[in-house]
Amino acid sequence: MYRKVLRDNINIKKNKGLYRYYFENSRPVGCFPKASYDTYGEAIVWCSNDYLNMSHNNKVIDASINGCKKYGVGSGGTRNISGNTSSVMNVERAISKFHGKSDALIFNSGYSANSGSLCSLGKAFNDSIFFSDKDNHASLIDGIRRSGREKKIFNHNDICHLESLLKEQPLERKKIIVFESIYSMDGSTAPIPRIVDLAKRYNAFTYVDEIHAVGLYGKGGRGLCNMYNCEKDVDVIQAGFGKAFGTSGGYIASDKEVIDSIRLCAEPFIFTTSTSPVIAEATLESIKQIESFDEQRRKMKFNVRYMKSALIKNGFTVMNDEETHIIPVFVGDPFLCRQISNDLLNNFKHYVQPINFPTVPKWSERLRITPTYKHSRSMIDKLVLEMIQVFKNNNVKLN
Amino acid sequence: MYRKVLRDNINIKKNKGLYRYYFENSRPVGCFPKASYDTYGEAIVWCSNDYLNMSHNNKVIDASINGCKKYGVGSGGTRNISGNTSSVMNVERAISKFHGKSDALIFNSGYSANSGSLCSLGKAFNDSIFFSDKDNHASLIDGIRRSGREKKIFNHNDICHLESLLKEQPLERKKIIVFESIYSMDGSTAPIPRIVDLAKRYNAFTYVDEIHAVGLYGKGGRGLCNMYNCEKDVDVIQAGFGKAFGTSGGYIASDKEVIDSIRLCAEPFIFTTSTSPVIAEATLESIKQIESFDEQRRKMKFNVRYMKSALIKNGFTVMNDEETHIIPVFVGDPFLCRQISNDLLNNFKHYVQPINFPTVPKWSERLRITPTYKHSRSMIDKLVLEMIQVFKNNNVKLN
Repeated sequence: MYRKVLRDNINIKKNKGLYRYYFENSRPVGCFPKASYDTYGEAIVWCSNDYLNMSHNNKVIDASINGCKKYGVGSGGTRNISGNTSSVMNVERAISKFHGKSDALIFNSGYSANSGSLCSLGKAFNDSIFFSDKDNHASLIDGIRRSGREKKIFNHNDICHLESLLKEQPLERKKIIVFESIYSMDGSTAPIPRIVDLAKRYNAFTYVDEIHAVGLYGKGGRGLCNMYNCEKDVDVIQAGFGKAFGTSGGYIASDKEVIDSIRLCAEPFIFTTSTSPVIAEATLESIKQIESFDEQRRKMKFNVRYMKSALIKNGFTVMNDEETHIIPVFVGDPFLCRQISNDLLNNFKHYVQPINFPTVPKWSERLRITPTYKHSRSMIDKLVLEMIQVFKNNNVKLN
Repeated sequence: MYRKVLRDNINIKKNKGLYRYYFENSRPVGCFPKASYDTYGEAIVWCSNDYLNMSHNNKVIDASINGCKKYGVGSGGTRNISGNTSSVMNVERAISKFHGKSDALIFNSGYSANSGSLCSLGKAFNDSIFFSDKDNHASLIDGIRRSGREKKIFNHNDICHLESLLKEQPLERKKIIVFESIYSMDGSTAPIPRIVDLAKRYNAFTYVDEIHAVGLYGKGGRGLCNMYNCEKDVDVIQAGFGKAFGTSGGYIASDKEVIDSIRLCAEPFIFTTSTSPVIAEATLESIKQIESFDEQRRKMKFNVRYMKSALIKNGFTVMNDEETHIIPVFVGDPFLCRQISNDLLNNFKHYVQPINFPTVPKWSERLRITPTYKHSRSMIDKLVLEMIQVFKNNNVKLN
């Protein structure tokens, strides 16, 4: 009975184009931006979050290896049960300093960081109410939901709508505004200074997810809050190490009181084996390295501009007009989106992941392209040319 | 306003003995079971989950280092977005085989594995109802709660109570029984064959958390379901790599349909950067190694028996009468529990973590001792003697 229900569900997903196929690959050091695919051979990856290829940086690799030789692989326990290692504490000290905050807390994933922190904050503030951007990531939504507090959703990046919702509430009621600095699936950016301004006027607490911005924007890669000179005005900066930092895990940086409260309450934090020294030591080195990556950041920005303009010139619908590194190319159908991705991989050795529901809303299915500083101009030219061919073969109209 | 609320909350926790103090430490390879404490110097750790010290095993360390040299530190993306690496897939193939199941899925933590899997299962089975052991871990409770399904709690390990609750439901209603094979905070074990028998008679689906059992019990460390010859009868075996396997992360092993359903639905899985190759390659080696650790398992069991009998002989209240490696010593007060732990560390260089609420119910605060194969008989003798002294100094009566 149970197996049949599951099989039927899976078939429904397949029929609706919602089934997820993963391609097995490996990413040998030195190969980036290429990867080896089990079935397809070597291909250029256009959707990696390893934005600065920091995962293959020599110094980061050496730090991981030295950490492993010195302390072994696992940490041996939760933070509470013998796992509060200096490797982990050093990362927290470094990342809080990086963001100009007095304290930080690291989690095993960005998902846990958001889910655990927002739930804890909601619970800590009696009768609080959340104001959540419509396009917020699943992990932010999950944390808000878990807190059990009331929630108002404001239209994506719509400051007027946010203000009208804030206005409806008594000034003394505790309000938590939750947003991302760069939205991961369309590359749009939040109007951070204006949100911060509203928060001050309406006495709100602010929580921003900078996971796709850290390493890439702001002074030394400190993120968009830093770029807008708003680091001090935002109460909690959340981000993670699995993207530009090239390792793994999530974190929050904030004041001591905020961090301590979340530390004492967030279940995914309390009940999880602490970060392995092989990851923590690499992360610590990556935080040091990333500050000096201005040249790589400059090259990345050049590549992004170059690629966007080539895509638009050739009639593709780029779903934002911002200068960020996430380029969403509209397809609007889950089957077509997958077919185009498959054709690009099979016929031209480009790996561009189709982004389907539930990661994005239905009928906004897209290809998500993130050019890095290691993609060459000729790689970009070739991809755009071959995308034109594949879109045409699949009868998807270009503008 | 916000900071004041948080400060007040923290002070309330401090006054109630619920504040958590972590001691910074490092665990140099070769030192186990000792660790270096920032403030206290070297101490013997009595509460590590690194049960077989696999985190410091030479072959496991080498596998991590080789993985790092070959593939770098981070995986570069979620499973869906370029992060479906062979390192991760190989772990899933090895661990499903280890448990005699046809498939497996790895998560970044045991917490995420339970939370994501149970939520997905509950949602997949329309109008399903959970039967959850009263002492289930927070992550199991979280997954059930997130599914939004009805839940009945049966008294800890009480088969009669479980049956009476199952009986109340129509035979055709979908039922999911959730339990642990070894309960982490008191070391008690579930009557697995009897639960499996009930599940067959009442047409229920079974989900067991074996995280504290894998590596230590059953053939080659396959866990308690294996020991009871029930592996095939249990629908989902959940466990993790952060304890006996000495690395980090959580997993589930089950049939292909079950794994595929959870893979397509579990948010903490979908929205998380996949496991780093430095962890995955080490884990793969650890799964190979652990099968041959019979001698270490035998020694550990000897130490556990030796220690329990010494504790009981000297009047301590050991909170279970089972043969598992988790020895809970009753204190029953959060302040005393912390004080005893502090005194043991300060005066005698033993690190025994106090376990307080919310990890265990209020007024059942305890010391949790997990002797490993690397603790010597003289270490155990010394600990027991010094515990007597510390308990007496704190006016805690012994039997």
